Amino acid sequence: MKTVIIGSGNVAYHLAKAFTQNNIKVHQIFGRNEIELSNISNEFNIPYSNENLEEAELYIIAVSDSSLENVSELIKNENALVAHTSGSLPKEILKGNYRKASFYPLQTFSKTKVLDYSKIPFFIEAEDQIDEKSLFELASIISENVEVSNYEKRKYIHLTAVFACNFVNHLFARAKEISDSQDLDFNYFLPLINETVEKIYHLDPKLAQTGPAVRGDERVLKLHEESITNEEQLDIYKTLNESIKKMYQ
Amino acid sequence: MKTVIIGSGNVAYHLAKAFTQNNIKVHQIFGRNEIELSNISNEFNIPYSNENLEEAELYIIAVSDSSLENVSELIKNENALVAHTSGSLPKEILKGNYRKASFYPLQTFSKTKVLDYSKIPFFIEAEDQIDEKSLFELASIISENVEVSNYEKRKYIHLTAVFACNFVNHLFARAKEISDSQDLDFNYFLPLINETVEKIYHLDPKLAQTGPAVRGDERVLKLHEESITNEEQLDIYKTLNESIKKMYQ
Repeated sequence: MKTVIIGSGNVAYHLAKAFTQNNIKVHQIFGRNEIELSNISNEFNIPYSNENLEEAELYIIAVSDSSLENVSELIKNENALVAHTSGSLPKEILKGNYRKASFYPLQTFSKTKVLDYSKIPFFIEAEDQIDEKSLFELASIISENVEVSNYEKRKYIHLTAVFACNFVNHLFARAKEISDSQDLDFNYFLPLINETVEKIYHLDPKLAQTGPAVRGDERVLKLHEESITNEEQLDIYKTLNESIKKMYQ
Repeated sequence: MKTVIIGSGNVAYHLAKAFTQNNIKVHQIFGRNEIELSNISNEFNIPYSNENLEEAELYIIAVSDSSLENVSELIKNENALVAHTSGSLPKEILKGNYRKASFYPLQTFSKTKVLDYSKIPFFIEAEDQIDEKSLFELASIISENVEVSNYEKRKYIHLTAVFACNFVNHLFARAKEISDSQDLDFNYFLPLINETVEKIYHLDPKLAQTGPAVRGDERVLKLHEESITNEEQLDIYKTLNESIKKMYQ
């Protein structure tokens, strides 16, 4: 399939890289930011343009949720298959008389980071089985974990990722805020954080729970609540302990 | 220093192992559970008893917070230094006419897991500088990261650990609950979780934040809130997003 990637951000960069590494030809990378486009183009030897969108059989649009609708209107080719990479938008957000699809890689991308694409799950969806099969096969060249997934399911995949990734990072940020307030080196907590993550490779996280709330240690809970001076920290502390108690009651 | 470890749980086991690996002689391991004691004794060639506590210069009590006070009364030797391993109790919880101290390893321990003790931070505290120095030197044989830390500071270390470890694990448990509800394999999320943790080795977590709340994506926030049917999940969702918004406003 003659393929064009639209976008020049982190997702577009890593798709271009994953495709190239797996000998899948990308015919053009198209976007607005010429500097980024030219960097990607140089690194992976892919032609780029910020003016003339090439004719192609498959367009993968890897732009922000808020730009997606507008960008999708640039594609006038009615014989094309067009897929977006968003976890939280239906394929119907794409505006044009072409076949619509979704091609969603579940990962948090930053350009400088080397990733093992074979482990990144891809969730794909199309209007008919032929396109679904094409996208499934394409994703399977890159990754061992490809699944067909409709919008409803993708919504919950994204929600799970918010809990397991975005919220976890915010807890790290709040934890660092606490350790900083005591002039403690946050690096001290990295072995503990690693061990916490290591555990869930072998053990259901529900069974791995430790800490004062799960053992019903009201003395420590009270002690901590009295020690917290930041309103958001206290809200998080109370909400998460309540949730832990409910889960194990 | 002639040293006795009291306890037969996970912390006692790993202290016995860390001491043995570093050629620090443990003269006895003492506790109630004879099966566990005999296992530790066999593995590390340390004499054990559940009846006669040996005379020693240093006793390290590695028992649960709730047993600590009672266990500490077993030590009648007034010339001894006695240290507990709790992150959330003052050294004064120890009841006896001996010198009191704290010897707190910051890690989540399970017996089956091999740990690199050199990376585990030890926080120590004693009544006078001589004991503090002894404990500091002892911990420094095991670990590269040893710090003197009073009760007040230890309390915040423990609180930081609750945010960065206990709460993070609970988010994994709630995330798995969501992915299970959609028959999704939770293993799909492990590369994303790894990447989230990897990032904070290079980047302040406050600067690594991604997700709908930090980019002010009210559409996705509303979409998620409408998708969540579990009350605790919703409380967590709202509280953490509120906290993220406050941190970046």
